[in-house]
Formats: sequence, C-alpha cells, structure tokens
Amino acid sequence: MEVVQVLHMNGGMGDTSYANNSLVQQKVISMTKPITEEAISKLYSSITPRSLAIADLGCSSGPNTFFVASELIEVVDKLRRNLGHQSPEYQVFLNDLPGNDFNTIFKSLPSFLNKLSKKLGTGSGLCFISGVPGSFYGRLFPIKSLHFVHSSYGLQWLSKVPERLESNKGNIYMASTSPPGVLRAYYEQFQSDFSMFLKCRAEELVAGGRMVLTFLGRSSDDPSSKECCYIWELLALALNDMVSEGLIEEGKMDSFNIPQYTPSPSEVKSEVVKEGSFSIDRLEVSEVNWNACDRGFSSPDAFRDGGYNVAQCMRAVAEPLLVSHFGDAIIEEVFRRYKEILSDRLAKEKTRFVNVTVSMAKRKG
Amino acid sequence: MEVVQVLHMNGGMGDTSYANNSLVQQKVISMTKPITEEAISKLYSSITPRSLAIADLGCSSGPNTFFVASELIEVVDKLRRNLGHQSPEYQVFLNDLPGNDFNTIFKSLPSFLNKLSKKLGTGSGLCFISGVPGSFYGRLFPIKSLHFVHSSYGLQWLSKVPERLESNKGNIYMASTSPPGVLRAYYEQFQSDFSMFLKCRAEELVAGGRMVLTFLGRSSDDPSSKECCYIWELLALALNDMVSEGLIEEGKMDSFNIPQYTPSPSEVKSEVVKEGSFSIDRLEVSEVNWNACDRGFSSPDAFRDGGYNVAQCMRAVAEPLLVSHFGDAIIEEVFRRYKEILSDRLAKEKTRFVNVTVSMAKRKG
Repeated sequence: MEVVQVLHMNGGMGDTSYANNSLVQQKVISMTKPITEEAISKLYSSITPRSLAIADLGCSSGPNTFFVASELIEVVDKLRRNLGHQSPEYQVFLNDLPGNDFNTIFKSLPSFLNKLSKKLGTGSGLCFISGVPGSFYGRLFPIKSLHFVHSSYGLQWLSKVPERLESNKGNIYMASTSPPGVLRAYYEQFQSDFSMFLKCRAEELVAGGRMVLTFLGRSSDDPSSKECCYIWELLALALNDMVSEGLIEEGKMDSFNIPQYTPSPSEVKSEVVKEGSFSIDRLEVSEVNWNACDRGFSSPDAFRDGGYNVAQCMRAVAEPLLVSHFGDAIIEEVFRRYKEILSDRLAKEKTRFVNVTVSMAKRKG
Repeated sequence: MEVVQVLHMNGGMGDTSYANNSLVQQKVISMTKPITEEAISKLYSSITPRSLAIADLGCSSGPNTFFVASELIEVVDKLRRNLGHQSPEYQVFLNDLPGNDFNTIFKSLPSFLNKLSKKLGTGSGLCFISGVPGSFYGRLFPIKSLHFVHSSYGLQWLSKVPERLESNKGNIYMASTSPPGVLRAYYEQFQSDFSMFLKCRAEELVAGGRMVLTFLGRSSDDPSSKECCYIWELLALALNDMVSEGLIEEGKMDSFNIPQYTPSPSEVKSEVVKEGSFSIDRLEVSEVNWNACDRGFSSPDAFRDGGYNVAQCMRAVAEPLLVSHFGDAIIEEVFRRYKEILSDRLAKEKTRFVNVTVSMAKRKG
C-alpha cells in the first residue's frame, strides 16, 4: 500500500464524510488554541513581515480546514491593531495528500473570504489561499518562505506502513499482544518520518519562524498502552469476528496494519532535540473524550448513539485505507460491527484520546 | 449568473471533459512557445532568483495544465546549465476559478513531478506546485511575490456578462446583427476587466517580472467580425432552432449571453499602455484551424468527425454556462444540433480561431 496514494479523509459532504465527522479534531484545535495563539503572537511580535506566510499541514477537507487559518489571522489582526501597525497580507497554504478533496474546500473559499473580511473589518490585509498537495514528509515549499506552520492530528500518520510487521497477526496496530519487534518497527518509522518532517520544515521556515504541532499521541511511555491503541484494537475485534465467520480472509487480516504512530511527549521531544533546528517552547498533553464525536445538537439521543458517532468519526478517517486493502464490499458490515462494539464499551468505561502538542521556534543562524 | 461561480471547464476525465477536449488549447500553447521561451529566458537572464515563482492563470484541468509549467522549467534549466548557475527552486501556482477540477490535477501531480525530475536530471532544483482558486480579475498573490505570469486562452473570459444586452435578441454573443450598444457594452466590460487584471498583476510581480498572455481574439478591428463570432453564431443557430420548435423558451434564449470578449491586438495594447505598469515586448497574432480539435490519432475518421470534435471542444468549455442558464435537460440535444451545423460548415469553408499574444515586462520602480 502506498500511503501517499491511499491515505485521505473521506471527501464530499455526505454522512460518512470527514467534513461531517470531524468534531473531535475541531475540539482538539479549540483546546490547543491558547498554545497556537501564544505562538503566532510571539512570531508576529518578533517578525512583522509585509506578507505573512502560514501553512496548515494535513488540512483535510471540512469545517476545520478554514477554522485554523481564520483564528490565526484574527489573532494577528488584533495584535497589529494594538501595536498600531499596518496590516500584513496573509498567504495561507493548505496542505494535504493529493487524494484529499480540495475541490470541496475551494468551492467554499469565496464565502469564507467574505466572512473573514467582514469579521476583520476595514484596514485588514488581503488573504490569499492556496492548496498544496503533497506529503509533509518531503519538501513542500521554497526555502525560507514560511513564517508559521500548524498541524493538528496529521503527524501521527506515518509516511508508510512500517516494514517487519509479519508477526503482528490478529492486530492492525500496536497492541498489548504485539511482539517487541513490531513495537520497535513502528517506533523506528516514527523516528525516521518525524525527523524528516523537522528537516524539511527547518529549510522552509525563516529564522525565528514557528511551528505548533498536535499529534494524536499518548502520555504513557508504553507504546502499546490502551490510551492510544484501544480504538484500533476494537476495530481489530470487528475484523477478527468477520475472519472467524469466513467473511474476511485470515491472510488479508494479518497483512493489514495502520500506518500510524501515537508518540509520547518524550518521544516527540527527543526527535526535536536530535534534529537540532528548533527550540521547544511548550510541550503539553491534553485529553479529549471519545464522545466528543457526538454531534450533540443534531442528534437528541446522542448518548445512545455514542457508538455510532465514534464509528463514523473513525470511518471518515480510516475508510480509504480499509477499502484499499480489503475492497469496499465489507465496509458497511465492518463499521456496523465496530459501532456495536464501541456502544458496548462506551457504556462501560470512560475512554479518551490523548493529544501531544509541541510549540517550537526555529533557531537563528 | 455569477461567472465566478459558474464558469469552469468540464471536469473529470470523461468523453465531454475538458481534459479530453483541449487539443486546440494545447496547439495554441505550442504555437506560442517561442514567445514564452523568449520571455522566460529574458527574465532569468536579468533576475536569477533562488526560488522562481511562476503563475499559470486559468490553468484548467487536463494535460495542458502541467504542459506550460514543464516547458518553462525546462527552458530555465537549460539556460542555467549554460550559464553555469546552480538551479533555482521552482514554485508554480496553478490558478483557476473555484469550480475548476483541482482534484484531478492534484491526483496526477506525483507522476508529473516524477517525470519532470527524470527529464531534468540531477542538480535541478525542487519544484513546488500549488493550486490557487480565485478570479484573476482580483488579487491572487502577495505583493511582489511573482516572477513570471502565463495565461493562455483564459483572458477572453470576462468577469461577468456585460450589462445592457437586452437588445441582443436571438444572439448569444456579439454578432453581425448586434446593435452598436451591445458591442459597446462588451468592449467596456473587456476594458474594465483587463485593466483590473493588469493592475493586480502589476502589484504581484517583482520589478522586471514578465507576463505572456494569449487571448482567443481577432485580427480585424470589427468586434462582430466572423473570425471571432462565427463559432458562437452557429451555437445560437442550434439554440434558435430549438426555440422555434418550442424546446427552449424565447425569453430564456434572449437573456443568454456568453461572458467573453475576443479582443484585437490594438485593443489589448491600448489597455496595457493606459495602465502604464508594463512595457510591451511583443504583440502577435496567430491562427489555428477549428479542426485542430480533431483527435487525429484516436479517431481514424477524424475528417468526417470534424463537426463532432469541434462540438465536443466547445461543449467542454461552454456546458457549465449553458446548464446554469437553461438547465441540463436540453444539453444533449443542443450539442447534437450544433455538431450537425458544424459538420456542414466545416465541409464548405475554412474556419479558424485567431490568437492574440502579448509579451510584456513590468517596468522598474
């Protein structure tokens, strides 16, 4: 499986689209807002460029896509008014893999720009938006062309499924039953990918440029900890049930692994320190309940539907990977079973996603 | 009709897609290549930036989209090798209206970049591609951020249908039977749009930056000349036939007008001189036969199918406008009739599109 070709959030605006199932991601962006605000404020206070270049990496396609850009611009606009500065122009680069649904983003652009310019009022600089298709594990922008990089819930995705996972039978991700070699293979892939990410961004950012990155991660030192692996273990349960009923081939199941790594704060820190171009300003852990997936307003029985909502969230994210490996015939059944398993667990225990956020600045010289 | 919302070439890769019906546009890009080559060479010889920013405005979605970028980069690469320079990085902005099918472009990006890097060989700078949705009759890029602007067969499209066209009954564009007020309304819209275009690009280009623009135009001074209006008059014939058979309401037909203006070289020159930021280097007229639409290799009876091919070319370009005004129920029938009319005329007379190409540089200071 070529992750670059396959991985994308579900496109369009339908029931299983990412656009309609990304409330957790939105919640996380809101929760980490103070860190992002602090970083963009520090940036603008030290560099006041005529044109401010911001990149959102792994922007996906949905309401969250413009959410970040709009918040960053509002913070800068408030600051520049307080400082009595003329407004900069804003150049926002929205990046995701080439399979992302950029058309849907672009069609809503005129109305976003209208709203933004009304909100900011007169005297605010123009805002230029472009779409940048490509993997953030390679160079995406010219040298020293960016001031600020943001990425939320993108960097836990690896550039590829790690090699040497043959022994991870019955699992689709790291799990308590995964052999040590599997955990090592996942970690090494994370190290190699994240250090490449840092190297590329170090070339693209100006000196003093800043980054705020939020990973789906874990707080524990154990990479197979329940806090990060459970959500996939439950999906594996659904798939294994279907294997035992002969609906999915065992070999197919054994060769499927999610290209993701949910790092701990110290693993993130360790790569940043090793790469050397950035100084860490903040490194924080936060949590968000699985039931943040609930579309509270639109569904009155949100509590009862918790399993459905979490399953839809995961489907919006994982469906293209599953379809590419298993074909699309089994998809409805997989997510029907996953939903039931999730409903059962949600009724019995409190489950959370863990977020690791790091804010850093590019060293001068 | 909001042109910005409605106008786009037919998306996807199907039979009526622009991607499969844009041979005329490709031919025109090839024909004007010497002018483009000269301009980018002059640019690179006078400015040798570390990162070269190129914009293709009205890039559409199809094989032509990367064709221009790839040619420009090859010219610069050859030149920098001859000069013994290190390669610049290339930043290519592909612009079109928000309804353009950017997803199809982006999906073919990885294979384009692979081919390009093989063609250029070692030592060539990275190439960064992004999509910029928006109207080129407004600002699209930060101030002084571009080195080179290219646009082919985009600028004949107006920002909107001119006002005061009520008297243009039975026509859908300027025609020999259009009243003088209609011709004037079209020309004034062109003047206002093109001068706005020049003003925006003057802000975005660096001093010494260059532009090569090719319009679908005319050589004659008469704006209702057959060389530019005939192709639409024949489409009006098909629509009028359907009006007379009661398949289209007369009022609907009378209120439909194509948002296009096919300028003469002197009209183009006059706006450039008036705006004042650019000096004209070249201003040339060329011609391309309608039957350049023929997909010679894929269809052995290309000659017999000339009408079909021209109709498909025009459909790829005009279908969204027609659908937005008339609905989609009549489309197949309109283009069936249009094809027949075209086949008849192509057998009897030689018909050509006229291209006006202008190459210019931004004045210093």
